[in-house]
Amino acid sequence: MNLPDQVAEALLAPLVDQHCRGVRRDDLVRSAFETLIAASETPAPPGTTHFDSPIGMAVRRWCAPVLGLEPHVPPAVYLARRLELGAAEVNRLLLRAAGVVAFLMDGGDEQDVLSVAETGRLGGAAADEIVRLERIEEEIAADGLPSLDYLDRLAHEVGVRASRCVGFSSVVAYRCGLDFEPGRPSRGLLLAAAGRRLADPKQPLTDPVLLRHLLWIAVDVARERALPIQFPCGNGGDRPHRGDPALMSGFIQALLPLSVPVILLDCYPFHRQAAHLAAAFPHVYVGEATTAVLGELLELVPFHKLLFGSGGAGVAETCYLGAHNHRRGLGRVIADRLESGDWSVADAVRVAHMLGSANARRIYRL
Amino acid sequence: MNLPDQVAEALLAPLVDQHCRGVRRDDLVRSAFETLIAASETPAPPGTTHFDSPIGMAVRRWCAPVLGLEPHVPPAVYLARRLELGAAEVNRLLLRAAGVVAFLMDGGDEQDVLSVAETGRLGGAAADEIVRLERIEEEIAADGLPSLDYLDRLAHEVGVRASRCVGFSSVVAYRCGLDFEPGRPSRGLLLAAAGRRLADPKQPLTDPVLLRHLLWIAVDVARERALPIQFPCGNGGDRPHRGDPALMSGFIQALLPLSVPVILLDCYPFHRQAAHLAAAFPHVYVGEATTAVLGELLELVPFHKLLFGSGGAGVAETCYLGAHNHRRGLGRVIADRLESGDWSVADAVRVAHMLGSANARRIYRL
Amino acid sequence: MNLPDQVAEALLAPLVDQHCRGVRRDDLVRSAFETLIAASETPAPPGTTHFDSPIGMAVRRWCAPVLGLEPHVPPAVYLARRLELGAAEVNRLLLRAAGVVAFLMDGGDEQDVLSVAETGRLGGAAADEIVRLERIEEEIAADGLPSLDYLDRLAHEVGVRASRCVGFSSVVAYRCGLDFEPGRPSRGLLLAAAGRRLADPKQPLTDPVLLRHLLWIAVDVARERALPIQFPCGNGGDRPHRGDPALMSGFIQALLPLSVPVILLDCYPFHRQAAHLAAAFPHVYVGEATTAVLGELLELVPFHKLLFGSGGAGVAETCYLGAHNHRRGLGRVIADRLESGDWSVADAVRVAHMLGSANARRIYRL
Repeated sequence: MNLPDQVAEALLAPLVDQHCRGVRRDDLVRSAFETLIAASETPAPPGTTHFDSPIGMAVRRWCAPVLGLEPHVPPAVYLARRLELGAAEVNRLLLRAAGVVAFLMDGGDEQDVLSVAETGRLGGAAADEIVRLERIEEEIAADGLPSLDYLDRLAHEVGVRASRCVGFSSVVAYRCGLDFEPGRPSRGLLLAAAGRRLADPKQPLTDPVLLRHLLWIAVDVARERALPIQFPCGNGGDRPHRGDPALMSGFIQALLPLSVPVILLDCYPFHRQAAHLAAAFPHVYVGEATTAVLGELLELVPFHKLLFGSGGAGVAETCYLGAHNHRRGLGRVIADRLESGDWSVADAVRVAHMLGSANARRIYRL
Repeated sequence: MNLPDQVAEALLAPLVDQHCRGVRRDDLVRSAFETLIAASETPAPPGTTHFDSPIGMAVRRWCAPVLGLEPHVPPAVYLARRLELGAAEVNRLLLRAAGVVAFLMDGGDEQDVLSVAETGRLGGAAADEIVRLERIEEEIAADGLPSLDYLDRLAHEVGVRASRCVGFSSVVAYRCGLDFEPGRPSRGLLLAAAGRRLADPKQPLTDPVLLRHLLWIAVDVARERALPIQFPCGNGGDRPHRGDPALMSGFIQALLPLSVPVILLDCYPFHRQAAHLAAAFPHVYVGEATTAVLGELLELVPFHKLLFGSGGAGVAETCYLGAHNHRRGLGRVIADRLESGDWSVADAVRVAHMLGSANARRIYRL
Repeated sequence: MNLPDQVAEALLAPLVDQHCRGVRRDDLVRSAFETLIAASETPAPPGTTHFDSPIGMAVRRWCAPVLGLEPHVPPAVYLARRLELGAAEVNRLLLRAAGVVAFLMDGGDEQDVLSVAETGRLGGAAADEIVRLERIEEEIAADGLPSLDYLDRLAHEVGVRASRCVGFSSVVAYRCGLDFEPGRPSRGLLLAAAGRRLADPKQPLTDPVLLRHLLWIAVDVARERALPIQFPCGNGGDRPHRGDPALMSGFIQALLPLSVPVILLDCYPFHRQAAHLAAAFPHVYVGEATTAVLGELLELVPFHKLLFGSGGAGVAETCYLGAHNHRRGLGRVIADRLESGDWSVADAVRVAHMLGSANARRIYRL
């Protein structure tokens, strides 16, 4: 890739990673590491390894040099080096190499992962919190309150958390699907749902009435404080076809007059639907998910609507690779556009800047 | 792109634009122009511009030279030049530069857009009308007739309009979704629906019974007169996931024995589903929508089933860019196929000719 | 394409074709040949030919030399050569040229197509049978048994066939859609469905209760004998949108503890959904369908989860082209990955080996 200097500089500029989760703080044995890099929750079938996958190849190729190894080293060599350096140093090297100026982190309160503050410190960057709505609910449900108190606490707690985060997130896509009813649930429905919920408070929340209620509480708070709400969608969850963000278009339309930014994350394989929503609605944004489809996204989505996010989670390799893939993938798209004469160099620089950090700074008010 | 002379000539040959709408006849201020080039109906969010989008880049790059400017000029320079030339001259330059031999135009009866005849005259081309079924209905509904007269008028008027158009179009996808019941509605259902409709005749028609009825009236007329019916599908409308043409496969099967051509337009992101339907059913055709996916379409759809159409609407830039993108996009695909040895030069010339005009001439009987 | 010798050798190594159907044994007139190469069941519209399609171009370009003709010969020349050589010799030349070491064949018991054994003999390869569940049912339904005997025979016959096949296949996608209820049907439902079925036993089986029952019988047998079950999905059938394998995720989850391999075939245009399922579930695999999207699949699916299969059916050209396209398509992807430095040569060789034969050998226990 032969890029003009200004473009190469724009690509190397620090990124705002508006979508990452916690990274494990402990040393990892091979089986744990393999499960964390795979989309799967189970070990690879007998006779196979999760290293024989796109992410596994990328770890050996691109992360190995960050840890001082040759590219393409065998998995065993990579993992031995990881243990030799120790988790803290591995995390520091990879997070630092990501070239990120601010991590917006969903989570970080689990015991075995780095906290938001630690992630920032190791990565040499600012770090802010994205609060997952369903996590708030699950903490409150565990407290064994009566229904009315439970509902009061929900509203109160979402407001309290808002004061120290830069945005909310909701995994309603994976809990009941994005084809949920768009409006606020009635008081009657809500009380009945709360009753059912509190009879079995240890399960993950999957009740569509309570999930909607939680969203509308968040919308009210987000509107007041100009906070965006992130929606991981796409293929996750038990019913992957219900993660198509187009299914949520009724809810999106309901939010239009309220000007609450909606950030669609992890949209693949529905990224084209997400791109359409971002083009059609002023308050809808798309998070880059799979760099493989960056070219597809850039055919349709306005450039001020697309946001870098590593999608990193579990191991720092994923944060580093997210940033690395963004820079390479965008570099390829730009090289192609410059060669065909479609974009000027100044256009390319502006697009790189918007996607990499400027859009996130504007939307999250960093 | 280095193409053999015969291929380059075939690509430059005049196109039949079988899918365009009216272009504004008046001078446009920046906000109006921006809204018209965006898929959105709202202004860009504060601090952004619709020029920072794929279409905005293309206007500055490819339309600027048609208006006598340098490529990549800033938006303000482009818009000033537009005002300086005046809308009539801008429309003439861009429509002429599109290299179109016939416009098949859906609409043109609104006050502020060029009529079918004017579009032809400015573009130096023939121009024929595509009649939108829902527009006929909305004119009749406004007349305040009793139900039976309303239904009689519908049937009569569709027949009358058929005599001076080259095809019908239906936006049933955006009004109730393509998962409508495939068969003719019963007389009972129809009268009930007409009663409801006439009680509130100023709204756009969204009743699935009347929409189906309208389609079946059109099918009877189309069959007699060998007229195709166009269906814009894809991402438009309030429920974008209901614009998947695969949802209409029951209706498509019902039309198979009647040999009424079905033209699927604007299919993105369901173009692969549309390509399948065109490959599987002899009476189904696909209109090119997004040139970005022309390569994907040409992997699956028979070459006699794919039709150029600019999708132009609102401003003449979109008509010009539609034609320009078709020629460039197809040129790239052909260059790739010639280089890999997959196609012969004669094959490439034939494909360019079919997509550009021959298929449309055959199907619309031009 | 300039590939290192080891990679070129790995690509040329014999393939296991885990997905093909019977090839016609008789000489074919043009109309019959055209229908067989098209996805359509009807002749091309007047004034057109199914040769003007991606597959038609490929036959003229790539199959012609196998029959001793120049590339790109006109269709008439190709078909004359076919008749001159005779069907047996044409089949021998094309199947042999496919470079296949084992055909896993679904079907081959129809009168006019080559049997499994004949396919193997002509192709110079081993040949094993995949048994289609719905075909077993349709034979039994035709026998006019009482309901209870019918149900007993189903269970018995699936077990008997298991002993001489390497896997099952089910076309439930095309019969009732993949959004079927995941669990075993109750005895009551089953008897009622059997009664209805036996009142009209000549139709193809479309009853969702019996289709599910058949699947669960097969699951029990497959589990015992470690047989995989193939599911053609994707665009086929009357309701193409119901062929999305994501709709089957409930059933897939139900099979997880049973370790019955699920092979998703013909997934296009839902190949990205299939890739996700293969990445998320240890017992799910994806069969290559359309080589055009091999690059897309290799961005997401683990390399030990993807299996070559020609999808050949009807004429031997499709078997040959399936193998040819796999080798070329994978060659392109590999060339790109090597050039970008993403894969090492050893990685490329291993991936080619896994996709081409090793994964199939492991999963089908060849």
